[in-house]
Amino acid sequence: MNKVVAFGEIMLRLSTERHLRFGQSQSFVATYGGGEFNVAVSLANYGVEAEFVTRIPDNEIGHCALREMQKMNVGSKNVLLGGDRLGVYFLETGAGNRGSNVVYDRANSAIATVEKGAFDWEKIFEGKTWFHWSGITAAISQNAADECLRAIRIAHKLGLTISCDLNYRSKLWKYGKEPKDVMPEMLKYCHVILGDIDTAYFMLGLDKVAPDYTNEVSLPSLYGKLQEFCPDLKIAATTLRYSVSASHQRIGGVLFDGNKIFTSVVREVHPVVDRVGTGDAFMGGLLYSLISQPNDLQRALNFAVAACCLKHTIVGDYNLATLQEVENSIGGNASGLVSR
Amino acid sequence: MNKVVAFGEIMLRLSTERHLRFGQSQSFVATYGGGEFNVAVSLANYGVEAEFVTRIPDNEIGHCALREMQKMNVGSKNVLLGGDRLGVYFLETGAGNRGSNVVYDRANSAIATVEKGAFDWEKIFEGKTWFHWSGITAAISQNAADECLRAIRIAHKLGLTISCDLNYRSKLWKYGKEPKDVMPEMLKYCHVILGDIDTAYFMLGLDKVAPDYTNEVSLPSLYGKLQEFCPDLKIAATTLRYSVSASHQRIGGVLFDGNKIFTSVVREVHPVVDRVGTGDAFMGGLLYSLISQPNDLQRALNFAVAACCLKHTIVGDYNLATLQEVENSIGGNASGLVSR
Amino acid sequence: MNKVVAFGEIMLRLSTERHLRFGQSQSFVATYGGGEFNVAVSLANYGVEAEFVTRIPDNEIGHCALREMQKMNVGSKNVLLGGDRLGVYFLETGAGNRGSNVVYDRANSAIATVEKGAFDWEKIFEGKTWFHWSGITAAISQNAADECLRAIRIAHKLGLTISCDLNYRSKLWKYGKEPKDVMPEMLKYCHVILGDIDTAYFMLGLDKVAPDYTNEVSLPSLYGKLQEFCPDLKIAATTLRYSVSASHQRIGGVLFDGNKIFTSVVREVHPVVDRVGTGDAFMGGLLYSLISQPNDLQRALNFAVAACCLKHTIVGDYNLATLQEVENSIGGNASGLVSR
Amino acid sequence: MNKVVAFGEIMLRLSTERHLRFGQSQSFVATYGGGEFNVAVSLANYGVEAEFVTRIPDNEIGHCALREMQKMNVGSKNVLLGGDRLGVYFLETGAGNRGSNVVYDRANSAIATVEKGAFDWEKIFEGKTWFHWSGITAAISQNAADECLRAIRIAHKLGLTISCDLNYRSKLWKYGKEPKDVMPEMLKYCHVILGDIDTAYFMLGLDKVAPDYTNEVSLPSLYGKLQEFCPDLKIAATTLRYSVSASHQRIGGVLFDGNKIFTSVVREVHPVVDRVGTGDAFMGGLLYSLISQPNDLQRALNFAVAACCLKHTIVGDYNLATLQEVENSIGGNASGLVSR
Amino acid sequence: MNKVVAFGEIMLRLSTERHLRFGQSQSFVATYGGGEFNVAVSLANYGVEAEFVTRIPDNEIGHCALREMQKMNVGSKNVLLGGDRLGVYFLETGAGNRGSNVVYDRANSAIATVEKGAFDWEKIFEGKTWFHWSGITAAISQNAADECLRAIRIAHKLGLTISCDLNYRSKLWKYGKEPKDVMPEMLKYCHVILGDIDTAYFMLGLDKVAPDYTNEVSLPSLYGKLQEFCPDLKIAATTLRYSVSASHQRIGGVLFDGNKIFTSVVREVHPVVDRVGTGDAFMGGLLYSLISQPNDLQRALNFAVAACCLKHTIVGDYNLATLQEVENSIGGNASGLVSR
Amino acid sequence: MNKVVAFGEIMLRLSTERHLRFGQSQSFVATYGGGEFNVAVSLANYGVEAEFVTRIPDNEIGHCALREMQKMNVGSKNVLLGGDRLGVYFLETGAGNRGSNVVYDRANSAIATVEKGAFDWEKIFEGKTWFHWSGITAAISQNAADECLRAIRIAHKLGLTISCDLNYRSKLWKYGKEPKDVMPEMLKYCHVILGDIDTAYFMLGLDKVAPDYTNEVSLPSLYGKLQEFCPDLKIAATTLRYSVSASHQRIGGVLFDGNKIFTSVVREVHPVVDRVGTGDAFMGGLLYSLISQPNDLQRALNFAVAACCLKHTIVGDYNLATLQEVENSIGGNASGLVSR
Repeated sequence: MNKVVAFGEIMLRLSTERHLRFGQSQSFVATYGGGEFNVAVSLANYGVEAEFVTRIPDNEIGHCALREMQKMNVGSKNVLLGGDRLGVYFLETGAGNRGSNVVYDRANSAIATVEKGAFDWEKIFEGKTWFHWSGITAAISQNAADECLRAIRIAHKLGLTISCDLNYRSKLWKYGKEPKDVMPEMLKYCHVILGDIDTAYFMLGLDKVAPDYTNEVSLPSLYGKLQEFCPDLKIAATTLRYSVSASHQRIGGVLFDGNKIFTSVVREVHPVVDRVGTGDAFMGGLLYSLISQPNDLQRALNFAVAACCLKHTIVGDYNLATLQEVENSIGGNASGLVSR
Repeated sequence: MNKVVAFGEIMLRLSTERHLRFGQSQSFVATYGGGEFNVAVSLANYGVEAEFVTRIPDNEIGHCALREMQKMNVGSKNVLLGGDRLGVYFLETGAGNRGSNVVYDRANSAIATVEKGAFDWEKIFEGKTWFHWSGITAAISQNAADECLRAIRIAHKLGLTISCDLNYRSKLWKYGKEPKDVMPEMLKYCHVILGDIDTAYFMLGLDKVAPDYTNEVSLPSLYGKLQEFCPDLKIAATTLRYSVSASHQRIGGVLFDGNKIFTSVVREVHPVVDRVGTGDAFMGGLLYSLISQPNDLQRALNFAVAACCLKHTIVGDYNLATLQEVENSIGGNASGLVSR
Repeated sequence: MNKVVAFGEIMLRLSTERHLRFGQSQSFVATYGGGEFNVAVSLANYGVEAEFVTRIPDNEIGHCALREMQKMNVGSKNVLLGGDRLGVYFLETGAGNRGSNVVYDRANSAIATVEKGAFDWEKIFEGKTWFHWSGITAAISQNAADECLRAIRIAHKLGLTISCDLNYRSKLWKYGKEPKDVMPEMLKYCHVILGDIDTAYFMLGLDKVAPDYTNEVSLPSLYGKLQEFCPDLKIAATTLRYSVSASHQRIGGVLFDGNKIFTSVVREVHPVVDRVGTGDAFMGGLLYSLISQPNDLQRALNFAVAACCLKHTIVGDYNLATLQEVENSIGGNASGLVSR
Repeated sequence: MNKVVAFGEIMLRLSTERHLRFGQSQSFVATYGGGEFNVAVSLANYGVEAEFVTRIPDNEIGHCALREMQKMNVGSKNVLLGGDRLGVYFLETGAGNRGSNVVYDRANSAIATVEKGAFDWEKIFEGKTWFHWSGITAAISQNAADECLRAIRIAHKLGLTISCDLNYRSKLWKYGKEPKDVMPEMLKYCHVILGDIDTAYFMLGLDKVAPDYTNEVSLPSLYGKLQEFCPDLKIAATTLRYSVSASHQRIGGVLFDGNKIFTSVVREVHPVVDRVGTGDAFMGGLLYSLISQPNDLQRALNFAVAACCLKHTIVGDYNLATLQEVENSIGGNASGLVSR
Repeated sequence: MNKVVAFGEIMLRLSTERHLRFGQSQSFVATYGGGEFNVAVSLANYGVEAEFVTRIPDNEIGHCALREMQKMNVGSKNVLLGGDRLGVYFLETGAGNRGSNVVYDRANSAIATVEKGAFDWEKIFEGKTWFHWSGITAAISQNAADECLRAIRIAHKLGLTISCDLNYRSKLWKYGKEPKDVMPEMLKYCHVILGDIDTAYFMLGLDKVAPDYTNEVSLPSLYGKLQEFCPDLKIAATTLRYSVSASHQRIGGVLFDGNKIFTSVVREVHPVVDRVGTGDAFMGGLLYSLISQPNDLQRALNFAVAACCLKHTIVGDYNLATLQEVENSIGGNASGLVSR
Repeated sequence: MNKVVAFGEIMLRLSTERHLRFGQSQSFVATYGGGEFNVAVSLANYGVEAEFVTRIPDNEIGHCALREMQKMNVGSKNVLLGGDRLGVYFLETGAGNRGSNVVYDRANSAIATVEKGAFDWEKIFEGKTWFHWSGITAAISQNAADECLRAIRIAHKLGLTISCDLNYRSKLWKYGKEPKDVMPEMLKYCHVILGDIDTAYFMLGLDKVAPDYTNEVSLPSLYGKLQEFCPDLKIAATTLRYSVSASHQRIGGVLFDGNKIFTSVVREVHPVVDRVGTGDAFMGGLLYSLISQPNDLQRALNFAVAACCLKHTIVGDYNLATLQEVENSIGGNASGLVSR
């Protein structure tokens, strides 16, 4: 079985309840999450051995994040203690035609201020087969981007499969670099990329195109372009999201294996209990399926879409749907019957 | 006015809030309910004198259940104190394409371990005209099934009208009997049965059929078959439920009076606040209407459907819609205007 | 910039949570609001200087209401302390086909028992340009209606623009007068009226008509009739509300400027987080737009509709949507994307 | 066994949690209680048949109060529906050297506006042996005082034992009468009075004295004076309360039977979970003990003190300590061991 | 470093909040704990490798217990999945002179119904040096007692140090055996016993004595008697608890090493936030100190007392005080200064 | 009447509830406060015109802080919008012998990164008479210290009275300076200093002494030493705090006017609801009393001590006790009677 290492940030999330606005809320619900950690939790839930590598401050709030990793059965033995603070983000959960709102307070977090070379990647990757990172780590600081690139190169040298979720966040990227300055070198070792074409082209510094995701004829050449930058690329995939309202989404997906476009049905998600982390749930489902049934790419896409849809019903950053639940959902049992 | 006795189990229900999964929840909302008790509460709310007969442990948790009966104005004077524990069930409330999940912890409850003959049914039924039970009581233990059959026979002997909700629960029936071993003898004294044809045939040991509930021609013979087993059967009815998702249901009903099929319109229920007990709300509405306006079976069906729909908006096991609210709803006022 | 004075009542609102019914709720969420105050909050949020004039009791509950005004940046320097109690209303929030329910407990409130002449309107209106009141103040007591009429006449004399939300509440009007006894004299000084034609005609004592709000041909003469009673009337407008269920509304609007009918698109609102105060949000949006861009009546209507829709997603009586959010929503961005 | 009727008001109590001040609290805990009702609950808990007579409004908030009576097993069959509102009081729970604060909002409640003669006391008292009322009912309105006096006279005529808790509240008595105008006539039929000498003398219009409750020699003549006004008086008793802080009380009691002074030990109460209703718990304990063991007045006093102390640990207006718990406490088991 | 295995039951604890009584509480706080598990958590918190062996049901509630073990860094790899239910206990937290109340609902739990021989103890004990069990496991069922005895014998054979907390619970021991029938054989392999002399003598079938824990002269012979039954006994210790009230305890300890009596100072604990598990915190502190500094028995006792005191301030069954906090507390820093 | 300007930081405070430890808490209570802001709130509550000057980020969390200032009636018109984040601190509330724990996360806050000269102090001080700052502002960053010194010098030049709370926090002072490098220059313009002698000497770089606060003979010379550094010093005062436990404090105070030592009685505070901000409450009370009754220094000290004691019973950073409540408390009414 594959053994996965994910690298990135785990944050304290502070969210309002009952659709309250920030200014109304006398309390915040505290959970812990982050794009790459969320993927690791999905994998652990599906039975894949997953470890998360990050740096957290050696204070009580950092220890809370560590307890969360343990609780979710995600390996934490290479987590570094140090730095000044755990990154924080505030979330106001929208409804109907009022979208959710995120206020980031993650600058100068323990992982953003990590010194280059802080992690012993050769040792971390011993016995591991897969490395997962995301564009967020590249966005938060030069230090984090540098260390991530080190990890990618070492993973590549050691023969691990490398996956990346592009995860563009316009409110980040504050340290003086643009994605196109950083991402191409990082992406060039990747085997699996999650992200829509617009984001991929933007991060690679390519001209903007207007992809039509319903056109399975034009998509191969658009996706194929990525392989010029990422010679090892095997799989490119993206979530398709139609946002009717903050409470009502339609979710599908597209996957390209270098030759062929796979598409999923588009599913209704209504209501949305928690929108955050649904892309990570897609990524987690995709990786699980690529790991467990690498030759069935249609299933991989369907699994990813089903996992993504179920995540919308779950509070917090990461997906708590079980393997059985995702599989039942693929099989058509998404009508919400009571199990009793 | 009729006076109704219901017999069965009242449980402590422990449910998660805000769609949290079990593994996320640091607290449980505690309410009390059970199929037959829920029917009694509906009747009491509509102004029918209703009594609930059960056995609860003589400890603080049992006393909570007793206070609940009192609060809801359901007679409790024949409740026995004894046994070791109150049955418990855990409820995780789903949303969208994630269904709700029930974990039963009701084995060895006070009523499941009741000794045969523990209740003085002749005395209990004095001055009463109606006896209601359900297939759950037959499912939880041999003792409960035996005592329920005793009650049915005495009720029959004393001339009470007898109603049953078939209520098949696959996670129960653990004591070595199958429904077809137990239910035929219990059902044969019934005047009113609630349940779909598949469940009824299954419990009676008949071969599976594939009823088309939109076909009012074929239904009479399918329902008519029940009368071979239940010679006193006057009314058979069922909820029709189309589950779009855990948050969106479509609800209708069918009623058969031995001759004719009555059908209701199908109504939209969106969102679902609480799915549990909606069948009991249907049963409660049906019994109330059969008791108060026995000759208007179309109204009985419409009342039951409206009550069932309203229950979906109410937290807890039993229906708190008032008589006026159900009647307004039948009359078309279901568009949720503010009353002010 | 205009400076607005609103006059009316601020109440303590006690609402159940999680769609609980009154009889289930062991606690009430406490917020503060009232039709005219809600309009003042909207204006303050959009950057208009707004003051609220009322009377509150000099006890801790009254002081809470005062703190709320301060918090929302609504001027409170002319609030009188006195009287026995703050008005209260209880709110049970419905869902689906169960409507919300309001129980008023506002009789004998501080403002309802205010003595005529208690406010020094000449002083209050110094430097102000706009006066807003509503039909609720006319409904709660003779004293409040008398003082409101005094304010209207003084405002008129001093040349302020006067706006009124008709706000008919059948559970009020308990002091022996009917709307037609009181409202015509009060309305005759108004420049802006919010309310549907049926309500306007009813309050003016006119015969009931059956307006077809989709018919832009017949509407002008129906609205035009109002100008016979209100010679200064410049703008009459109304929210159009189609209530699919307590959780699903369709919202549009109509505006008449004496010559022409303006209509908005009808927008979907689903789910409804809080139905109360959505009319006040419409009024607040309308006033803001009339004040800031008096010549663009189509924008005024669109702004009012967008504000009204957003309010449905916000807990409490008043609208917390920001100017930017309403403008984004008019511009088509109502699909609830996460801002991050 | 004695059968007790209590007459008075049941209110909605809205209290802040976690020692929050009114201005900080976004919610209120809702419970129901009132001096005389609290006594009835105590009696019902100890196994005495108790009924509460009052008037509540026929709205959802009134129905909540009715459900509370049912839940607590207090008879409610003579409760009248009518009037405009349920009385409300707001409670801010203090701590340490900050005392609790009550804001009354009970004017014009259903019982305060009851019409004289509304209750059929002859019928209500059939089969009953004891009537309990308190000085609060005399304080809230002329109507309530009048009807209470009617009840007292009829009870006296029918031979019931009559008890009164003087319960002086300076924030009430707003309708133009002073206690000395009303109370003497009401008290003259009483057999049992609870209240300290200062209050009793004040209500009877006597000159102020400075009783020394540790002086068992001087007390008999002070208490004896009451018998001149209340010829049937058998028992006068009072709680002795030494308030170290809002969180720390010392509680004892004194009882006079016309001849002899009985005193109890003074017990430490720390912390105080809920101070309200502790006097009613004393009264409830006293009545229970006088009813069940009328000849053991020392036990009656000890029972009342123990009940009063236990109430300080219980949230809400009324005492939920069981008979067994109070008896254990008298017996010295007040050291708070875990029962497991 | 020592590696510890603890064996026993982990339960779902359902407790009321804010000192509410069971009958008032609409929700329960859900935590997980149990005597032996609590000891394992203490050890893990102090940095000792600790594993917990038990059996939990393979349902969502059982999985919650497993997540709790993971979160607390307690080894769970030998936990068996099986059986019908997780044991439950209900806790009503007292205050002042009202003690806390426990209602057990743990019969037929997964561990109580474990089959003899279910655990592979030889494998479990590989590389381990210490085995901890308690009298609760002996009390819940014959099966659990049998398997515990198997574990003890194997542990003894393999040379592990064996510790036991006597933990007498009168509400358990329902399966037909008395402690003296079971415990002597189990205790005879123990090296460390926690429990007062009365309990030890009772469990060993000895005549009751009246130990005076302040008399360091008489104690050695009383404790010495235990060594006749437990030939390997090295340490016997007990918590000394003086219960002023449910909110105020005085805590000390006594330790006997076969020769000498060690005593601690008695410390004030006020308020008591959570009384449950304070004995387990003592045991956890004692074991940690015996493991880390085996030759300093005075420190071991002081550490155990300080840990026990700190646990009284912590919600839940187990102790979350850190090693540093306990050491600071021993050093005299128990005056509750803010750390900032 | 004096008009006060306070300068410093307002933070978001995130605290656990019910004495939960950080690792247990799934939510945080969100309040806003900070040493100097808390003083401003106290003054506003007592009726003094108070303004708070700070810098907050122009995001939703910053706006929450602004709303809080408005709500508390503290002037905010000179607050600057800018910077990246609002300072945060986490608070775990202790009990008994477990102290509260603060985790600061305030580095790089908007005020810590303010540029020198950002505030127009001449304009801010127009019409004002008093300037208050604290040692925390000196501790958080060089920028904040520099700007604070600018403000002090300008205030001094303009003739305002200047007060300082020394407020030493060992977890701050991270920017490379020690108090003695910064504070002497800042303190030399002060008229009123709050802080114990040890802290004052430490900040001024003097040798440590061991003051005996019960010795009114030796204190004058110890305090007198301060005047060598602070030539304008009129009043030096300090809280005397004896911490029995986190839940039990004894509070007194000492004041020196250059000639004479004033001492207060020492008062019991039990329980402690919220320890944070009690020093600020002392300062707020002291300033109020110095402003309103400048010649009665004994009253000033008594008022400060009473305010400080009352603050211990109030949740949040600042004191919500009213002027009347503090005055009642000074007058001896601190026994926590119910006001009703």
